[in-house]
Amino acid sequence: MDLKQIFDNYEALANQEVSIEGWVRNHRDQKAFGFLMVADGTDFRVVQVVYEESLSNFDAVKKIKVGAAVSLKGTLVLTPDLKQPFEVKAHEVVEVGPSHEDYPIQPKRHTREFLRTHPHLRLRTNLFTAVFKVRSVLHHAIHRFFEDEGFVHVAAPIITGSDAEGAGEMFKVTTFDLNRVPLHEGTIDFSEDFFGKATNLTVSGQLQAEVFAQNFKKVYTFGPTFRAENSNTKTHASEFWMIEPEMAFTDLKGAMETATKMVKYLIQAVMDKAPEEMAFFDQFVEKGLIQKLKSVVDKPFATLTHQAAVEKLLASGRPFENPPSVLEDLYTEHEKALVELMDGPVYIIDWPKDIKAFYMRLNDDQKTVAAMDLLVPGSGELIGGSQREERLEPLKKRMQAFGIDPEDMAWYLDLRRFGTTPHAGYGLGFDRMLMYVTGIENIRDVIPFPRTPNNCQL
Amino acid sequence: MDLKQIFDNYEALANQEVSIEGWVRNHRDQKAFGFLMVADGTDFRVVQVVYEESLSNFDAVKKIKVGAAVSLKGTLVLTPDLKQPFEVKAHEVVEVGPSHEDYPIQPKRHTREFLRTHPHLRLRTNLFTAVFKVRSVLHHAIHRFFEDEGFVHVAAPIITGSDAEGAGEMFKVTTFDLNRVPLHEGTIDFSEDFFGKATNLTVSGQLQAEVFAQNFKKVYTFGPTFRAENSNTKTHASEFWMIEPEMAFTDLKGAMETATKMVKYLIQAVMDKAPEEMAFFDQFVEKGLIQKLKSVVDKPFATLTHQAAVEKLLASGRPFENPPSVLEDLYTEHEKALVELMDGPVYIIDWPKDIKAFYMRLNDDQKTVAAMDLLVPGSGELIGGSQREERLEPLKKRMQAFGIDPEDMAWYLDLRRFGTTPHAGYGLGFDRMLMYVTGIENIRDVIPFPRTPNNCQL
Repeated sequence: MDLKQIFDNYEALANQEVSIEGWVRNHRDQKAFGFLMVADGTDFRVVQVVYEESLSNFDAVKKIKVGAAVSLKGTLVLTPDLKQPFEVKAHEVVEVGPSHEDYPIQPKRHTREFLRTHPHLRLRTNLFTAVFKVRSVLHHAIHRFFEDEGFVHVAAPIITGSDAEGAGEMFKVTTFDLNRVPLHEGTIDFSEDFFGKATNLTVSGQLQAEVFAQNFKKVYTFGPTFRAENSNTKTHASEFWMIEPEMAFTDLKGAMETATKMVKYLIQAVMDKAPEEMAFFDQFVEKGLIQKLKSVVDKPFATLTHQAAVEKLLASGRPFENPPSVLEDLYTEHEKALVELMDGPVYIIDWPKDIKAFYMRLNDDQKTVAAMDLLVPGSGELIGGSQREERLEPLKKRMQAFGIDPEDMAWYLDLRRFGTTPHAGYGLGFDRMLMYVTGIENIRDVIPFPRTPNNCQL
Repeated sequence: MDLKQIFDNYEALANQEVSIEGWVRNHRDQKAFGFLMVADGTDFRVVQVVYEESLSNFDAVKKIKVGAAVSLKGTLVLTPDLKQPFEVKAHEVVEVGPSHEDYPIQPKRHTREFLRTHPHLRLRTNLFTAVFKVRSVLHHAIHRFFEDEGFVHVAAPIITGSDAEGAGEMFKVTTFDLNRVPLHEGTIDFSEDFFGKATNLTVSGQLQAEVFAQNFKKVYTFGPTFRAENSNTKTHASEFWMIEPEMAFTDLKGAMETATKMVKYLIQAVMDKAPEEMAFFDQFVEKGLIQKLKSVVDKPFATLTHQAAVEKLLASGRPFENPPSVLEDLYTEHEKALVELMDGPVYIIDWPKDIKAFYMRLNDDQKTVAAMDLLVPGSGELIGGSQREERLEPLKKRMQAFGIDPEDMAWYLDLRRFGTTPHAGYGLGFDRMLMYVTGIENIRDVIPFPRTPNNCQL
């Protein structure tokens, strides 16, 4: 039986036999009896198993070490006076797979830094069991949200021949023998590489999602993306998952409506589907987490233009290290202040065109683009999006201003030549969303096997 | 309104005003009226829109070209005598985005080869609209199946430092300037590369899934995997998605039970959720497709050992180009014959150890391993899986026999040292499953932007 079944139905199972297969998280053995704390990963909760001298293999069971796999049968006994609602009195305990003295995950506090050095074992802790369960819950909630809203999922390609977007440094993908890269008149001859051209790992599926939005109306990508930036911060990973919805016949406001609905849905989903884990995070990782998340679900999201946001910051009289400017990006200190000043989540829209990407739609003022960032309490930017430039000539001009040869992206221009529509979309970093809902501060602790500069374990 | 809403409720909408935004798939203009066939991607069906001279912009509407985006309002009129159940009599038609004479997707039969040369436009056809909608339906069904069965989703890493599995040729991932790869005493100095070591694109998430199964009991990966094999066949892509469930406390039989349940669930899901598309495939792509799929849902899956399968093939008296052998892999002709002889899906289990991977569990006969292939009618192998070798010493021996240094995979051995369990899993190629349920014969036609040797468009 899965522990989840047992915890969900323990009252009905009182005084019945249950069978459990799992791993020993803790073992306290006394002279004539002992307690095994057993987890099986189907439920966050751990079951207390009591065994006594009457066990035929009592002496062997006493020697079971933390980390061992066990299979056991016993009677479920309600224990209303104890902290846990029931325990299991074992009458059969089989050690399926033993453990050893050098098992690194002992029942004591380990630092997250220490646990990162054991990526194949660290998940056998309460913290990481909770993190990776909630990761799965959030993953499923994202697909369910978009499926229910009628979006078609698109698998954006991972290997791309396009490097035009300029969203960040890229990893090269090649089958060249790196010791003998073929040269032709001094330059690399990519015609001999696997794809007959230079290829990279994708930084975004947006442009390909636009292709699909122009047939399916509402689409989204949800897959891995990559940045080869040599930045060792708590929030940057070289490999991370992104959600990128794209909607035809939709403007910036429409994209914001979908983003708001999505954020509230996702938070509600993890609170509904992983209540034990969320209570754990609230207690041990970020005090007030659930209150923070509930306020995001309950509050309307405000909207400010970038200019109004800067004016509000200046009018607040707050001291800033970097003075806010209508021509510049917002700094983290500005984002934090805006969320406080607006007392909740806030979209910043209509950004200065020179600091945003070429594909964003030029507003009528000719100075700003129809872009949006969503700022949320307790974090900075959670979502970035825009209405896309659907007009052929303005798009060409923007490309040229960004040094992109329109010929190199003829297919992207074709979307504007044949049945173009107002369309908009946004990107949500999955791992950052997971950090937000769990309170975990380091992206390395929400990714099963994180990739960062000089770090690629397993 | 989405066309899906209109098609789902057209009787209730009779004689009511509807508004539609979509793309013109066909346009027949007569002297005093015309027909626009409009698709919006939310439904496979295309709506027929009639317009007449009474339109204020009648002359402009007459000039709308195939491929244009339109926004229109009109009255829904039931047409029980016609092929389609209703049409829309337009009283307002706005051309949102025009099209041009050189629009390549004209309303006539295009070959799939021709359409592949327009990867950004080919989905604007009935065929590819159906394929990529069913792809999304299948994608969602996979997540829903595993979520409902209590599996935790694991994002297996895409970039890996491990090349020990030997499942196939790998793509290299690097940030080296390929013109100036750093050498140290004649060999490449990977300590200077981004991750401080040689890295590749993953060929399988199985080994990492095993890590997670040893805490969560039931887990699965579903993400992109890669093969750098220079093979230009209809069934090989360089980038494809794989589903890899992994279950602790489970043997080969348990994995087969899950696989059977999953295959039946997925087929039923696409038939239930995309009936129009499936009828289209049955009519235009593979005659008898639905019958084939229904039989897979209805029939029990048989099981044969590899040896029994070979004996059955020999006893059948059928002529084979390659004589079946108890020591060798099955050829496609054998797979086809077995499905016919067994009159339905069949698992082939207990394969000769020398032709299977190092991690498969050695059977007591010391000659075979607990592996399984699922063969299905109208295709070859759909799924491959195995019980994993959970015993430390036999695993080490197998690694050495395969030329793998156990030291290089100490983490994998640790899973056997600390709380090992009998466990099993399998792999399902997502794109091949999609080919199977749609009847599409070339993998390039089920992947949004396929990657194959010398081909990496967009």
